[in-house]
Amino acid sequence: MGPGRREVVHSTWLEAVVKACGCREEPLSGQLLRDSAEGHQQGSAPPESPFPYHIPLDPEGALELSWNVSYVQKAIHFQLLVHGLKAGVLFGMSDRGELENADLVVLWTNGDSAYFADAWSDQKGQLHLDAQQDYQLLRAQGTSDGLSLLFKRPFATCDPQDYLIEDGTVHLVYGILKEPFRSLEAINTSGLQTGLQRVQLLKPEVPTPAMPADTRTMEIRSPDVLIPGQETTYWCYITELPQGFSRHHIVMYEAIVTEGNEALVHHMEVFQCAAEFESFPHFSGPCDSKMKPERLNYCRHVLAAWALGAKAFYYPEEAGLPFGGPGSSRYLRLEVHYHNPLKIQGRRDSSGIRLYYTSTLRQFDAGIMELGLVYTPVMAIPPQETAFILTGYCTDKCTQLALPPSGIHIFASQLHTHLTGRKVVTVLARDGQEKAIVNRDNHYSPHFQEIRMLKKIVSVYPGDVLITSCTYNTEDRKLATVGGFGILEEMCVNYVHYYPQTQLELCKSAVDAGFLQKYFHLVNRFNSEDVCTCPQASIPQQFASVPWNSFNRDVLKALYDFAPISMHCNKSSAVRFQGEWDLQPLPEIISMLEEPTPQCPNNQARSPGVPTVVSIGRGRG
Amino acid sequence: MGPGRREVVHSTWLEAVVKACGCREEPLSGQLLRDSAEGHQQGSAPPESPFPYHIPLDPEGALELSWNVSYVQKAIHFQLLVHGLKAGVLFGMSDRGELENADLVVLWTNGDSAYFADAWSDQKGQLHLDAQQDYQLLRAQGTSDGLSLLFKRPFATCDPQDYLIEDGTVHLVYGILKEPFRSLEAINTSGLQTGLQRVQLLKPEVPTPAMPADTRTMEIRSPDVLIPGQETTYWCYITELPQGFSRHHIVMYEAIVTEGNEALVHHMEVFQCAAEFESFPHFSGPCDSKMKPERLNYCRHVLAAWALGAKAFYYPEEAGLPFGGPGSSRYLRLEVHYHNPLKIQGRRDSSGIRLYYTSTLRQFDAGIMELGLVYTPVMAIPPQETAFILTGYCTDKCTQLALPPSGIHIFASQLHTHLTGRKVVTVLARDGQEKAIVNRDNHYSPHFQEIRMLKKIVSVYPGDVLITSCTYNTEDRKLATVGGFGILEEMCVNYVHYYPQTQLELCKSAVDAGFLQKYFHLVNRFNSEDVCTCPQASIPQQFASVPWNSFNRDVLKALYDFAPISMHCNKSSAVRFQGEWDLQPLPEIISMLEEPTPQCPNNQARSPGVPTVVSIGRGRG
Repeated sequence: MGPGRREVVHSTWLEAVVKACGCREEPLSGQLLRDSAEGHQQGSAPPESPFPYHIPLDPEGALELSWNVSYVQKAIHFQLLVHGLKAGVLFGMSDRGELENADLVVLWTNGDSAYFADAWSDQKGQLHLDAQQDYQLLRAQGTSDGLSLLFKRPFATCDPQDYLIEDGTVHLVYGILKEPFRSLEAINTSGLQTGLQRVQLLKPEVPTPAMPADTRTMEIRSPDVLIPGQETTYWCYITELPQGFSRHHIVMYEAIVTEGNEALVHHMEVFQCAAEFESFPHFSGPCDSKMKPERLNYCRHVLAAWALGAKAFYYPEEAGLPFGGPGSSRYLRLEVHYHNPLKIQGRRDSSGIRLYYTSTLRQFDAGIMELGLVYTPVMAIPPQETAFILTGYCTDKCTQLALPPSGIHIFASQLHTHLTGRKVVTVLARDGQEKAIVNRDNHYSPHFQEIRMLKKIVSVYPGDVLITSCTYNTEDRKLATVGGFGILEEMCVNYVHYYPQTQLELCKSAVDAGFLQKYFHLVNRFNSEDVCTCPQASIPQQFASVPWNSFNRDVLKALYDFAPISMHCNKSSAVRFQGEWDLQPLPEIISMLEEPTPQCPNNQARSPGVPTVVSIGRGRG
Repeated sequence: MGPGRREVVHSTWLEAVVKACGCREEPLSGQLLRDSAEGHQQGSAPPESPFPYHIPLDPEGALELSWNVSYVQKAIHFQLLVHGLKAGVLFGMSDRGELENADLVVLWTNGDSAYFADAWSDQKGQLHLDAQQDYQLLRAQGTSDGLSLLFKRPFATCDPQDYLIEDGTVHLVYGILKEPFRSLEAINTSGLQTGLQRVQLLKPEVPTPAMPADTRTMEIRSPDVLIPGQETTYWCYITELPQGFSRHHIVMYEAIVTEGNEALVHHMEVFQCAAEFESFPHFSGPCDSKMKPERLNYCRHVLAAWALGAKAFYYPEEAGLPFGGPGSSRYLRLEVHYHNPLKIQGRRDSSGIRLYYTSTLRQFDAGIMELGLVYTPVMAIPPQETAFILTGYCTDKCTQLALPPSGIHIFASQLHTHLTGRKVVTVLARDGQEKAIVNRDNHYSPHFQEIRMLKKIVSVYPGDVLITSCTYNTEDRKLATVGGFGILEEMCVNYVHYYPQTQLELCKSAVDAGFLQKYFHLVNRFNSEDVCTCPQASIPQQFASVPWNSFNRDVLKALYDFAPISMHCNKSSAVRFQGEWDLQPLPEIISMLEEPTPQCPNNQARSPGVPTVVSIGRGRG
């Protein structure tokens, strides 16, 4: 590419900066930005590795983010590609994707110079400069239609104003500046085009296992669907395995996303239907369609799950997920979640999942086990709560019965709640002592449920306890939210992927129903208003008649922390292991895992609180 | 002083260091230590101001601490004088005076060189070097019999391992190294002579008001008492004002401590006896003596209170504490707390308090008001709690009735609990919004109750609410701890000193007794064991029969956070203001004060994590 390409740079301030900084006008392949006059660290070498992870930030794909993770440096290198750059861009993170109280980097111009700074937005969305500049600009380079920024951020900065990058979901936020601002403080996010993108930033560093020589692939794709012009669509499509398809192991799978639809296809799952039905009707349409056959609700056994930003999913070398053969259904359900906030019309899509499978069965069958709460209304969340916690247990008694002496090895996990879920965590305890976090997401979103590889395999032995806690926000609810299957009811589930497969499919709990009735009686006696405890009242009705105040809320919490539980220690969703599973004592935890103190980066790496003047080099764009 | 004084330096390693570093042998007046070879900051100028505060750390006075506070720099300069230095010294702070989990500075020698470092002790008392060196050594100087260390520490370091220096009590800890250690990590506090001293480090910067021209003084001192050879003695001494002593204003008072007893006299208070008794018997003896006349219990109106480390107490220029004249008793009780852990025998003492008073009455009478909880067993703390909170309210209804439209102005505060108290805080709320902290002590100790000047006067207007919360630790109790006067019962009180004096002497609350009975019924119904709710059972008996578990504990908490209260809005301890004070609603708080984010010191001030090699200059000693 020759010098002529300068014409496609639209922003005059960018041209001004490029001229002012004395950059050569011919494209400089991979040129690093020279140190600015202030001597800030703009000239560091780029990270050794390229960027294995990549995601579009906005629905139009104007902002593209790539990144890599260094667990040694405890830092992330980001490369932000801005197509059609106007007067600048914001990028950062916040608790749940809001533009207020966000931790941001800002590239802006006052018309003459361009600046880069670590900033934060207050409750009202107004920007302020961080006292500590923890985002470190490494390179700013002009491209054919905009700009490429390379910068670095430690996981933890120890600046109380900053976001702590943790395992699990991170809500990335962005904003587009369309005109110059005289200063950083003049910017308020409320006036900008903004958005959010959920992603797992801290991808685990798991080595990629080799594929078997006889690996074959199968694509489960939507049949040239016309994406509806509405914000949210769950598309359901039924397909089937070939007649006589024998038992195989799935060893890997990856997403196939139709080109151009990268920002629309939000997540996809492949389910296997229940073996007890001879056949399933074919269907292709929205999952909430009245035309959808009832029987498709029996297609719930997960074979593969992908969400935006996820890469290929590899089973560990020693295990594979069995499918096909006798005793398993030939019918598969593909579910695609289209997220179309701009309500784009007329777009067609054939996205799906490509399964990599082998007929040479691996040493172990992989299995999926459900941990957490039973789907029952006895577990309920009062309304108007910002962070109410429900906990489900897999007790020592159940693991003692159901797990082999050599234990099982959990290598991946998919967390699941309905709409009010905000955090999920599963902890492994042994002899009353918390030993390990199986999976934790402090910024969990029901809109972003991916299967995640664990950074470290967690082994669970007979007698161990698995405790799954979900935190809910019911600020927008007027009545209690009870447990159940409905989208307005709640779940607290961790689907753990493990090997070797055991008979234990489900290890979940709920509060004992008799103790819950004691609670309703107590509420009746203590409060002036009456709770409907007439014999014909259902539990949801009883919860609906509780006059919610701090006392009734606190006592419900106290009940859940104290009352005995009913265990579901099941071979399949209906068949329990033999034993007494009602009125079981709550597992006692005598020592908790200590929160690791975040390691603050070395002082030397941080710069004092002044923006960096940016001089933009010209790259290959 | 000439060079001959070197003989009195006992520690050979110290001599070695003094020789090795090439320091001149003649005493160098005020010589600063030159920068060490490593170039660490030992050569900074001393702080401009001298050290207004001073306290002995150990009962023998071998360690003397002086300090000043810079609210501009948000830092404290410490001068630690070590008499009879052996092989080194530890000094630092911890939550409650334990040597484990402490934030420490250590001066130690390996026999050849001496080192200074910012360190911390783990749960087992073993020392570790801090990654951040936040204690900054400014000077190390030999003295006639040891060493003087000058160092600086910011209030907040933002190192999660470090102690945060807050308002209120700080538990200083020390340890004496008697032999060299090859390294810092070789030191464990458990093998050392150690101790603690409680002190308010962050003294308020209140300008000293001028004394009236006609100021006179009166000394209330113990009558040459033979200090008992036991760890704890509260000495009671009754004295009286002269016949016909007219109404005066106390404008200032200070402690008089008998020379040599500085480390033994822990705190002193002067009380005025009740006016309703014509006379009181004279007495001088331990307050818990069986010989002490019963009537002395009526001498409870505080005139002056001093505790170790406190300086003179000045009333604000516009106010004085009235005493003398008609309607007030001539009898005074002096109480001296001797703390004699080494059980020193035969020491005599005449310590006491010197009152400065004027007959030219100031504009306002100062008053003392009691906030917090009524002394009643309805407020109880379950056993085995590490941080149970009880809260007492002074409601808007009471302040509306009792306070003048121009408000009252609180300038000082004395917090009070019995043995299980660990934190106390009073917050002012207006229209449901928390507005100001009246006084807070996050490291409160019942063994260190001083009257503290507030950094800023807090004005309270009709309709305001004052909320006093106390945090208790009952880990060593087997039964519930109920409210009451007994030393094994609990209190939650803030005596606020204010002007102008009003009729409101007491503004306190307790949970409604009827709702507490509902709680006992509920416990009865919910638990298998029975709580004694027979009509003749007293509330302490009822609490004693509660089978404590997480549910009964959590529900009691829920009750205290929900149930209506009974208010004591009293003119004197027995006379209520007119109105309905039972079954009052709990004040509603819709917005809480935000915790200020600690300001981290500038990076440049901190040094990386290596010990400083110490070269010791020779001062005047």
